[in-house]
Amino acid sequence: MIKGKSFLIVGLGLLGGSIAKGLKKWNHKIYAIDIDPETIRYALENGIIDEGGTACDSQLIGKADVIISGLYPTLIVDWIAENQKYFKSGALVTDVTGVKGAIVDRIQSILRPDCEFIGVHPMAGKEVSGVQYADPAIFLPANLIITPTEKNTQQAIDFICEMGKELRFDNICQLSVAEHDRMIGYLSQLTHVIAVSLMNANDSKDLVQYTGDSFRDLTRIAKINEHLWTELFLLNKENLVQQIDDFVEEISDFRNALQSEDTEKMKQKFITSTQRRKYFDR
Amino acid sequence: MIKGKSFLIVGLGLLGGSIAKGLKKWNHKIYAIDIDPETIRYALENGIIDEGGTACDSQLIGKADVIISGLYPTLIVDWIAENQKYFKSGALVTDVTGVKGAIVDRIQSILRPDCEFIGVHPMAGKEVSGVQYADPAIFLPANLIITPTEKNTQQAIDFICEMGKELRFDNICQLSVAEHDRMIGYLSQLTHVIAVSLMNANDSKDLVQYTGDSFRDLTRIAKINEHLWTELFLLNKENLVQQIDDFVEEISDFRNALQSEDTEKMKQKFITSTQRRKYFDR
Repeated sequence: MIKGKSFLIVGLGLLGGSIAKGLKKWNHKIYAIDIDPETIRYALENGIIDEGGTACDSQLIGKADVIISGLYPTLIVDWIAENQKYFKSGALVTDVTGVKGAIVDRIQSILRPDCEFIGVHPMAGKEVSGVQYADPAIFLPANLIITPTEKNTQQAIDFICEMGKELRFDNICQLSVAEHDRMIGYLSQLTHVIAVSLMNANDSKDLVQYTGDSFRDLTRIAKINEHLWTELFLLNKENLVQQIDDFVEEISDFRNALQSEDTEKMKQKFITSTQRRKYFDR
Repeated sequence: MIKGKSFLIVGLGLLGGSIAKGLKKWNHKIYAIDIDPETIRYALENGIIDEGGTACDSQLIGKADVIISGLYPTLIVDWIAENQKYFKSGALVTDVTGVKGAIVDRIQSILRPDCEFIGVHPMAGKEVSGVQYADPAIFLPANLIITPTEKNTQQAIDFICEMGKELRFDNICQLSVAEHDRMIGYLSQLTHVIAVSLMNANDSKDLVQYTGDSFRDLTRIAKINEHLWTELFLLNKENLVQQIDDFVEEISDFRNALQSEDTEKMKQKFITSTQRRKYFDR
């Protein structure tokens, strides 16, 4: 079903570039649009794409069976609204956005009836950005989450599964839009808020020489793209504020147990966290 | 200066056992006392120690030039008080305790005047305990922190440096007792409180299949020995409560910026954390 299909990637960054490289191995035609001419030049020169340009060219857009948006979340709806007139009839449209509630419904309600949009979130990344760092190996340990709605066909879901297999994701699964955003608020966004806040709570340059692995592990993701993550957080504000509140309540409870030397409560918390963490061992 | 010296390790757990194995390579005589007969049997059978026993045997204690306490922090002072009558005259006594304020001064004020105690903290460990897991490789990426006071001799400091080199620590440095406990409150203890609280804030077993590397990295140390860490936290209570309060203030500030959609403030926090984290890259 996926064999012989052509793909257009709009916004050829780290994720879009990694998808392009991964699909190229299966001999798909890969097209790309990016506002940065250097990105397109690099991708053509390195064989990452077959054709590309910086403008929203009707010919290029109209050739693709599948359109994958690698755009920033706030840009994607407008881009589809403006350019869907060029889409091939029957085109499948998808994305890589880390939040879904703010975009899936809006896109599905404006999209031409002869095309289909299905939300996809590859839970993969790096602390750097740009097509130069693109590498499909980032998908090997990662989840591909599909967030179908009642407007999606089984055919589209199956197609994304096939694409996920070609990209060699460790795990491919489905969640509702609401479940996805709640889950991502806890597992990904809250962890980033914690890492950033831990890093910012103390001007600790002078502590570098004493740093152990635990501190490095906890703050690795404090190196963060401020534009993208501000958008992602705002688009999932309600869930994330709730997750932060739950976490602050829990850490404050620990703080009060320590302050009042309630050793039994402290031990119980350690026992609970140890048991729960075991489920997450690979 | 260290050549030919003999060592007694009291409490042969993960750290004590790793020190024993590391020093053994340099042909030191290694003795050990542990209340668990199986620990001593295992250590003798595997050539980790030369002699050992479960009782505080005056002969065994009196033979050692250097005594290293691998005991729990609340046990160490009493053990020295009870057994120092057996110490060889001139013995150097040290420890591996993760907090210093609560013990260094107390030990130095009760110790026989012909012996010397110097505080040492090997910032190394694993999520498992017991001599069976002992491995001097845990010291390769780690810091050895010496916390001398005005009661210590330069000779003792130099000796611990030599021992740290034989154990192949990445870095050996000195801090005052107060600086050590403040630093450890932030870099190590606060990170553990965060990991435990993140794990406990959500009963998230059902989220395992969606988990990415960031969440795993942040919660790795949520698997924790409840007895040891409760002691360590209580012994550094003032510092740790202050660190938790500073962190909660910072994360609450972020939460309020998000709630009020103050994008400039959010971006500034991401920029700060990104810059600060760069200092910690290896």
